[in-house]
Amino acid sequence: MIFNRHMFRRAAIIGTGMIGGSLALALKKHGLVGSIIGVSRQEASLKTAVEMKAIDESTMDIHKAIQGADLVILAAPVKVILDNIEDISKHLRRGCIVTDVGSTKLSIVDLAEKHFPPHVMFVGSHPMAGSEKSGISHANADLFKGAACIMTPTAKTNRMARDKVKQLWTIVGAQVKLMEPAAHDEALAYVSHLPHMLAFSLARAIPEAFLEHGAIGLKDTTRLAGSSSKMWSDICISNYRQVIKAIDESVKSLADIRKAVVAKDEQELVQIFNQAKTKREILEKKING
Amino acid sequence: MIFNRHMFRRAAIIGTGMIGGSLALALKKHGLVGSIIGVSRQEASLKTAVEMKAIDESTMDIHKAIQGADLVILAAPVKVILDNIEDISKHLRRGCIVTDVGSTKLSIVDLAEKHFPPHVMFVGSHPMAGSEKSGISHANADLFKGAACIMTPTAKTNRMARDKVKQLWTIVGAQVKLMEPAAHDEALAYVSHLPHMLAFSLARAIPEAFLEHGAIGLKDTTRLAGSSSKMWSDICISNYRQVIKAIDESVKSLADIRKAVVAKDEQELVQIFNQAKTKREILEKKING
Repeated sequence: MIFNRHMFRRAAIIGTGMIGGSLALALKKHGLVGSIIGVSRQEASLKTAVEMKAIDESTMDIHKAIQGADLVILAAPVKVILDNIEDISKHLRRGCIVTDVGSTKLSIVDLAEKHFPPHVMFVGSHPMAGSEKSGISHANADLFKGAACIMTPTAKTNRMARDKVKQLWTIVGAQVKLMEPAAHDEALAYVSHLPHMLAFSLARAIPEAFLEHGAIGLKDTTRLAGSSSKMWSDICISNYRQVIKAIDESVKSLADIRKAVVAKDEQELVQIFNQAKTKREILEKKING
Repeated sequence: MIFNRHMFRRAAIIGTGMIGGSLALALKKHGLVGSIIGVSRQEASLKTAVEMKAIDESTMDIHKAIQGADLVILAAPVKVILDNIEDISKHLRRGCIVTDVGSTKLSIVDLAEKHFPPHVMFVGSHPMAGSEKSGISHANADLFKGAACIMTPTAKTNRMARDKVKQLWTIVGAQVKLMEPAAHDEALAYVSHLPHMLAFSLARAIPEAFLEHGAIGLKDTTRLAGSSSKMWSDICISNYRQVIKAIDESVKSLADIRKAVVAKDEQELVQIFNQAKTKREILEKKING
């Protein structure tokens, strides 16, 4: 049967930025969808997505886009994803599978489970790909190759939908891990949101006149400060409890260093730095391994 | 005349780690010295330095090493450099030029100017090369190629010595900038010492169980936490006033973010992140350009 040639007949990608655009390209590359319609509030982004052949059709009308889609991917910044969920909930096709690519999961999953009717199957995803860059021009079909993708199914998640979305991520090259939405948000606050906050804080704290003396170490440590301000504002606000907790932990850690510096306590400083080095070595092994 | 073949007849390098070892290799590569004697408190380091042909002779006796040296390079961690200055001051050959590679300058320059007799010519240097790695095994002759080297001559510095050391750094590939010792320490507290403190604090603050979820962003942001604990303890203590000031500025910057997250103030967060992004863009241009 012709409908069986692809995993999905028609995908709607809501948000054609770097992640949405890359996923569109990957879905096409691996023949997972019959056709893709892209939605954006930015006409230029849609135009580029069509030119790059990431999407077959474009529209700025989200309701039009989801008509007849059996796969809907919410790929806008977190706050827009939350708006999109409320906006599309009554207009989704029966049997439609919906997933998202948001960097926080609890608020998105909670809202989707609250709003989507029983005939719509939602499962949350967070592909940990991308970089400080943003926009369709940075999209590529291999972005997810070797990247982790955390999926956050709950007791309410349809198993078939979960397995199909898992298969989709696996085929585009991601390594899927399953987590509870709350556990995802707590872990990501430390390993992703906090490093962004520290990079922003560091870059902002340096007097401009001193920047010329910066070298590669500073460049690496502040790289994440090049990330989208709007996107990170959304992430912080949507995961505020965990982000605040992680910021407080890092300030506590900095305060320990400050105290030892004031006391000129070499032994204490070496011990603090060694604790950090041990964690860093574990991380190095996990990321390389 | 045979003595004119090299810029220096005999160099003593006190500390044969990554920087000392690399400088020894670079001096040999560019034919700047007749012979090099290396000093270390670690026999294994000396043995490797000889095997790598970084040094011609080795000794664990610092007084023996500086006998007859017309160039002495202090290349140990900052605290050891301070000890070395007191230790060697009465034993240096007349007309000897002394420089160092320490990451802080005010305490080193002050001590050298206080202790060295008038017939010894000291000028402080800080080659901004190296990485989170340490030890002679990471040494290479091209380490200083394209790197900045901040020299901190003062009103008391002999001009000939300053020019000769400047020439030395230039020949091994570094771009020399001149700064006051205090101005160096203030700027470096922000562009180097603070990023290290934030990397250590971040790595240390992350619960071990979450490390497996870390990706490339976390890896970059914590890379400096792999640096030598002993070396960084020395740097913090020797530049404690400026390090504390920089830590306080970064905490202030984090507190601004925290406050905006608590208030869920999107506009404020975007503004803070944009301020950071602007600084980061300046840095990106300076480092690439």
